[in-house]
Amino acid sequence: MDMVSIDDIRSAATRIRAFAVRTPLLQALWGDDDRPLWIKPENLQPIGAFKVRGAFNAIGNLDESVCTRGVVAYSSGNHAQAVAYAAAVYAIPAHIVMPKETPAVKIDATRARGAEVVLCEAGERERVAAEVVERTGGVLVPPFDHPDIIAGQGTLGLEIAEDLPTVENVLVPVSGGGLASGVGTAIKALCPLARVFGVEPELAADTAEGLSKGHRVDWSIEDRNRTIADGLRSQPSELTFAHLQKVLDGVITVSESEICSAVRELALRAHLVSEPSGAVALAAYRQRRTPPGRTVMVLSGGNIEPQVLTDILAS
Amino acid sequence: MDMVSIDDIRSAATRIRAFAVRTPLLQALWGDDDRPLWIKPENLQPIGAFKVRGAFNAIGNLDESVCTRGVVAYSSGNHAQAVAYAAAVYAIPAHIVMPKETPAVKIDATRARGAEVVLCEAGERERVAAEVVERTGGVLVPPFDHPDIIAGQGTLGLEIAEDLPTVENVLVPVSGGGLASGVGTAIKALCPLARVFGVEPELAADTAEGLSKGHRVDWSIEDRNRTIADGLRSQPSELTFAHLQKVLDGVITVSESEICSAVRELALRAHLVSEPSGAVALAAYRQRRTPPGRTVMVLSGGNIEPQVLTDILAS
Repeated sequence: MDMVSIDDIRSAATRIRAFAVRTPLLQALWGDDDRPLWIKPENLQPIGAFKVRGAFNAIGNLDESVCTRGVVAYSSGNHAQAVAYAAAVYAIPAHIVMPKETPAVKIDATRARGAEVVLCEAGERERVAAEVVERTGGVLVPPFDHPDIIAGQGTLGLEIAEDLPTVENVLVPVSGGGLASGVGTAIKALCPLARVFGVEPELAADTAEGLSKGHRVDWSIEDRNRTIADGLRSQPSELTFAHLQKVLDGVITVSESEICSAVRELALRAHLVSEPSGAVALAAYRQRRTPPGRTVMVLSGGNIEPQVLTDILAS
Repeated sequence: MDMVSIDDIRSAATRIRAFAVRTPLLQALWGDDDRPLWIKPENLQPIGAFKVRGAFNAIGNLDESVCTRGVVAYSSGNHAQAVAYAAAVYAIPAHIVMPKETPAVKIDATRARGAEVVLCEAGERERVAAEVVERTGGVLVPPFDHPDIIAGQGTLGLEIAEDLPTVENVLVPVSGGGLASGVGTAIKALCPLARVFGVEPELAADTAEGLSKGHRVDWSIEDRNRTIADGLRSQPSELTFAHLQKVLDGVITVSESEICSAVRELALRAHLVSEPSGAVALAAYRQRRTPPGRTVMVLSGGNIEPQVLTDILAS
């Protein structure tokens, strides 16, 4: 299997430098004394999530000859925005396949970036995307199952290692596993003594179960859809699962109420708006189940529905 | 009068480098096409506001012989936190004079930084602080009326000039004027073609009136206290007013509802929690009264009461 290396991640960092924000590592003065806490705020990226890193790396790495035919992606969330944005910056066409039930605000935002939106029935995204690839000759940019995506997300780990080389614990959300694979690969290469923990909602804990059993397990999409963390409902591919097996020291699962408390705490103490998926690492931190030591939490994104944020703050 | 120079600001930048966050300049994809917008997010500083810059510069510049006697400050807001935090980092004693009606959460936060809080009657802060200085032999660290404070706040302008040398408009909140004096001095020295606009609430627009009349004017504290922007209720000193006369191209005033809309927009589109005072520059941007061109807004701080934030988001 084609495992991503630290050199791949270093190349990605060069490739995305002009486009992704080098987010600061923010020390939280309100962290525990025995676990000093830093936040990596990826909600400050353009489009509000880490996904720009992988998208810019994958698109920036395309052969020029294929660029005129454009790129294709399927996503109802942050990956759609990231691919549409990166394609627009590179002035190449983008088709984004989105389920019909996607909120209008997200469809409009994708169109506003200049992408052509192709609506499809629920559960038909991958099939329709393959049709668009067939029709246009474009290149599919998958949300996580690709070495360029993993390497792009890994640049976030590279920055953590540069800014806090003595880091002891890194907490990172897991869904399809591209982010955790890339961050884990960077941290294990550069800070070999540091531990890397994935974080999942209890209601979508397929990776926690899979890693404990030693093989991927399938949770039904109905089960995974129960969590409020709508960015954490995917499952790893063979490629990302192999990375997670190699780089994670464990997976911590968090409850729905712990996720909401973390969103609230980030807003009021860190002054950062996080989507529920983006706050799970703080929820894990608050369980105090990791060993003591300097801890970094990855805040992966900030795209939350206004009503959800208001409800969480008022609760 | 002892005017702050760009060299003073450069020295301050060296002095505070290890303590203040070098906040990124974030391009807002949702800015107007004719006025591309960047945000300088000072809510990401330790203690949640730009005030750490001035506090660390002033305290870092103290003679060692006076450090053992400590520092004294009067403030119910971000300056109190900043001085308490900087003094703790330098391991020198701090006395903070706060009005009795200060919310308990702010008094507790100041004590949690290791400072001794001296409570006083409303309107008695300066007198009581002078007494504490007399008694302890400590050094007063004023909130804005001091060259070291102005130079420290000016480091923010230095960073804007470094990150976006082609900036054309800078929008910065004005209260006591330390921030606007420092930022304006840096911008005028390094980007002489850029315009610098102060921003004030309509309900506390003493500087707008003063600059148009060519001299300081006094608004009653009762009048100034009407604005929700509780960090913008002070008035310039002779020193800061002289700087503002020199470096500002104008002052834009904003209404209370414009301020609340800006807090809401920053939370939902920039994923940044701002206090009302911190959001006035976006409110001014939305008026489209500045000339077209690349525009930076200074988001000065994020310390908002939870209930105020919830109410604004729900409105």
